[in-house]
Amino acid sequence: MSAASLSKLGLQDGDSRPTKGKSIRAAILLAAAKLATTKGLTGLSIGALAAEVGMSKSGLYAHFKSKQELELAIVETAATIFNDDVIEPAIVAEPGIVRLRALIDSFLAYLKSRHFPGGCFFAAVALELDTRPGPARDLVLQVLDRWLGLLRQCIIDAQVRGELDTDADVAQTVFEIEAMLLAANFLFVMTADLNQLTQARTGVENVLQRLVVNASPKNKSSARGSPN
Amino acid sequence: MSAASLSKLGLQDGDSRPTKGKSIRAAILLAAAKLATTKGLTGLSIGALAAEVGMSKSGLYAHFKSKQELELAIVETAATIFNDDVIEPAIVAEPGIVRLRALIDSFLAYLKSRHFPGGCFFAAVALELDTRPGPARDLVLQVLDRWLGLLRQCIIDAQVRGELDTDADVAQTVFEIEAMLLAANFLFVMTADLNQLTQARTGVENVLQRLVVNASPKNKSSARGSPN
Repeated sequence: MSAASLSKLGLQDGDSRPTKGKSIRAAILLAAAKLATTKGLTGLSIGALAAEVGMSKSGLYAHFKSKQELELAIVETAATIFNDDVIEPAIVAEPGIVRLRALIDSFLAYLKSRHFPGGCFFAAVALELDTRPGPARDLVLQVLDRWLGLLRQCIIDAQVRGELDTDADVAQTVFEIEAMLLAANFLFVMTADLNQLTQARTGVENVLQRLVVNASPKNKSSARGSPN
Repeated sequence: MSAASLSKLGLQDGDSRPTKGKSIRAAILLAAAKLATTKGLTGLSIGALAAEVGMSKSGLYAHFKSKQELELAIVETAATIFNDDVIEPAIVAEPGIVRLRALIDSFLAYLKSRHFPGGCFFAAVALELDTRPGPARDLVLQVLDRWLGLLRQCIIDAQVRGELDTDADVAQTVFEIEAMLLAANFLFVMTADLNQLTQARTGVENVLQRLVVNASPKNKSSARGSPN
């Protein structure tokens, strides 16, 4: 986790147990977000969470009025980390294909860091929350929509800048790129094999190669046949 | 769910509550497998399951000695359904690319049927079980390995039969195809939008088109252009 996001959460690198004031709540939420990636939000017991942060259950309840409030605060914590560690470092890159590759690399580095034992927090809890309407689900959907929207905007910018074929189906391209990232998340967590991350990166390039304009004739013919 | 798999489980089409004998256990397990796709195995409470099948908690405990035994039986039930509904109808197809497409279509039809509210059972529970060694996790890994092995064998058979380029990286191709299926599962459950299934199917064809041998130049150009 980046020093920036830990600091924003009121923590320092290496924090695993609460110390004082604001950071107690932050440490609880960080531990809870990590646990939720393997146990789900439904499966996250207050008892297990209290044990993880070295507090009593009643001590933990003092920080959150209800399980619903705790869940929303967990999702907010994960959203802050995702924004600071994945999106912010990449969004400064030049628009179009350079920013797209920066976002992909940033996401894969985030998986590789294994800060969350169950991989991407949002992929882990999204399906579970899908059947439970409420503010936690709404925020998860908002983070996913923003992410897919960023990928989409990169493709459109790349088309406008003449980097990608303007005939390319934007929604299809976003689907295929997101597919590589979801597979990286799932298969890397399952196997702990770094090759899964490399394969995802290669998969993204294979998608782009089909749509790149101004590739040399040799590349073009191997990637997508002769131009129409 | 197919009549064959329901019958093998001791149920008939439309069964949602236990009736008698062997089918009581089967109905409990089917309901539990469905619930597990949204709540996870950890989040599956005996109380919620008992309510779902219209039994008392003690009545339900009479069928299973422990939560661990229940979990393994749930995974076995899901494995039977996956085998009967996804693999068996497709495995009879001609080896190579025909069988590969049959497996893909079969999997997407299984998602479309929405028999499991949280999508593919194995995708739903795999990450959760990853941190909990035991027979349930082993069986989940076995089902996933078999599935990926089937896709791999189809690619190899397609190469031997001259349908796909023998230079194609088999592991990379399997990764990209599985990526489309994982994305279909995740995004279809999240959005209930059938376009996600169509995009996955198009994504698989885009992967294959890059590797198909003996396509005519005309086909090559139209198939490798934008996937409209």
